Amino acid sequence: MALVGFGNVGKAVSRVMLEKRELFQKIGFEPTVVGIFEKKGSWIDEKGLNLPEILSYGESSPSWVEGANAKEWIPDLDCELIVEMTVTNIEDGEPGLTHFREALNSGKDVVTSNKGPLVIAFPELMDLAEKRGRMLLYEATVGGAIPIFYAAREALLVNKVISITGILNGTSNYILTKMTDEGGSFSAALREAQERGYAEADPTYDIEGIDAASKLVILANGILKIKKKLRDVKIEGISKITPEMIDLAMEDGYIVKHIGYVDRNKIEVMPRLIPKSSPLAVGGTLNVISFETDIAKDITFIGRGAGPRETSSAILGDILYINKIRKENM
Amino acid sequence: MALVGFGNVGKAVSRVMLEKRELFQKIGFEPTVVGIFEKKGSWIDEKGLNLPEILSYGESSPSWVEGANAKEWIPDLDCELIVEMTVTNIEDGEPGLTHFREALNSGKDVVTSNKGPLVIAFPELMDLAEKRGRMLLYEATVGGAIPIFYAAREALLVNKVISITGILNGTSNYILTKMTDEGGSFSAALREAQERGYAEADPTYDIEGIDAASKLVILANGILKIKKKLRDVKIEGISKITPEMIDLAMEDGYIVKHIGYVDRNKIEVMPRLIPKSSPLAVGGTLNVISFETDIAKDITFIGRGAGPRETSSAILGDILYINKIRKENM
Repeated sequence: MALVGFGNVGKAVSRVMLEKRELFQKIGFEPTVVGIFEKKGSWIDEKGLNLPEILSYGESSPSWVEGANAKEWIPDLDCELIVEMTVTNIEDGEPGLTHFREALNSGKDVVTSNKGPLVIAFPELMDLAEKRGRMLLYEATVGGAIPIFYAAREALLVNKVISITGILNGTSNYILTKMTDEGGSFSAALREAQERGYAEADPTYDIEGIDAASKLVILANGILKIKKKLRDVKIEGISKITPEMIDLAMEDGYIVKHIGYVDRNKIEVMPRLIPKSSPLAVGGTLNVISFETDIAKDITFIGRGAGPRETSSAILGDILYINKIRKENM
Repeated sequence: MALVGFGNVGKAVSRVMLEKRELFQKIGFEPTVVGIFEKKGSWIDEKGLNLPEILSYGESSPSWVEGANAKEWIPDLDCELIVEMTVTNIEDGEPGLTHFREALNSGKDVVTSNKGPLVIAFPELMDLAEKRGRMLLYEATVGGAIPIFYAAREALLVNKVISITGILNGTSNYILTKMTDEGGSFSAALREAQERGYAEADPTYDIEGIDAASKLVILANGILKIKKKLRDVKIEGISKITPEMIDLAMEDGYIVKHIGYVDRNKIEVMPRLIPKSSPLAVGGTLNVISFETDIAKDITFIGRGAGPRETSSAILGDILYINKIRKENM
């Protein structure tokens, strides 16, 4: 395999692969990483990179090739899987989109944590994967470590998922939880989220619902199989929520949550009143995703929506799944 | 396949198989039911039973064989899968235990909703299945429709599950939710649960934690891989909970829940105080199961813990999984 993107997530995936060597051996998974690509250059060794060395010495490692970039290397690289972990870009999906296309076109499976290419071109990419007989898995893009795509694709396969409701962004959930539990204004809660590192200096993407809407687009395409785009999502952020609104809701047994919802007629992210006892009423930075299904009825999943190690759980879940399928078909 | 047990769950599985014919065709699953066994007799046709006819006409259906019983028929039946749905018996696991053994010994996979044989003989049965190269899956035994065993076995495979915490019995959760939301005594809440059909005439099994403890034993063996038995579980029921205890807890932001917990040192079911904002604080008859893991951290699953259709979702999830594995290895 090759790792494209070597920020916090790429490093966490590498570390967890080292930690879990014994487990991998037991289940017959022997990962060989032949390339790790980042912006300024890459580590390349078709006999297999030395991960501990790269994690310790970085660009001083002998396998470092200054200026080598993923786009040019992916097509001819001798490996069967590209793990794409570059930063999400919902404007044009790049550089991820090109990486996905190059990988699939050269007969490689793709596992990703990058929402950008899926938000921009989900149907095209799935068609391409199918045409090339390759897999494109993206568990890490929505709900962090929570295995929702796996559940829908496998364990709940007999069910039709009718709608999906969820809290898809940990930053906005943290802010609303803070306002609910301790009172205070939106701007005070945002400031605290920024101080704790839960919100970016420019928080627009999280608090205005754009991140959540991007995830809804992936849920709509990936689980409900409807070709929705970002522009189809009705979006309303949380920056206009006042302490008075929250108090008023609480008096009636409700809490205000930033909820994403998609069914075959509607796709939207907006503040909504949720009964306090609802499975959706989870606090802090947690994410929650609830499937309404025809046979199992409602199934709800709660977990950490972010964090490099948590994300690596989802990425490695996808990698192990592909390994299993490929081995069984050999 | 053959269905053993044709009560509410067996009938729901049959109905859902009929409803989902189109989906099954699409994924290449062509179920042929050659036998359906109940106490007084069985429907048998090695060319495939007519399910709609049996669901409509019962024992008047021409395939009915009075007195034919599962125990004698299972070994020689020409099928590859036994779906065991007889009633749970935690005293000696019968008749399920014999059905499991006969099925595995004659080279058939087993899918079940029956906790009894697993509570009595989990390690023995798993060893037998392994020795015979057969699968024994039991998603429906814990948490109804919630795909927890699937998640642990597949999607979260890279994780070590450190502990499992949950509300594993819908009846006792209904009673405690009622007492919390509306006040009133335990006995009043129990009476209402009985009137609504959520509790049996003899509610001991549910309210004294025996059902939850049985499920904990299956979670301990199946997910944590530790050989715990029912007698190892420290059990305390909910019948001594008073409205005063609940009020006192609520004043401090807690609610009283009947919680099952298992890790490598401890296995217990007892009333515990849970913070109101915890993912475990779900109401009504819902079940919740939370895995503490090393990489993904806490992952929580919420859903309906009972109901024939909900249970059939879990059973069919297991059946489709076996179908996939067997097809891939043909």
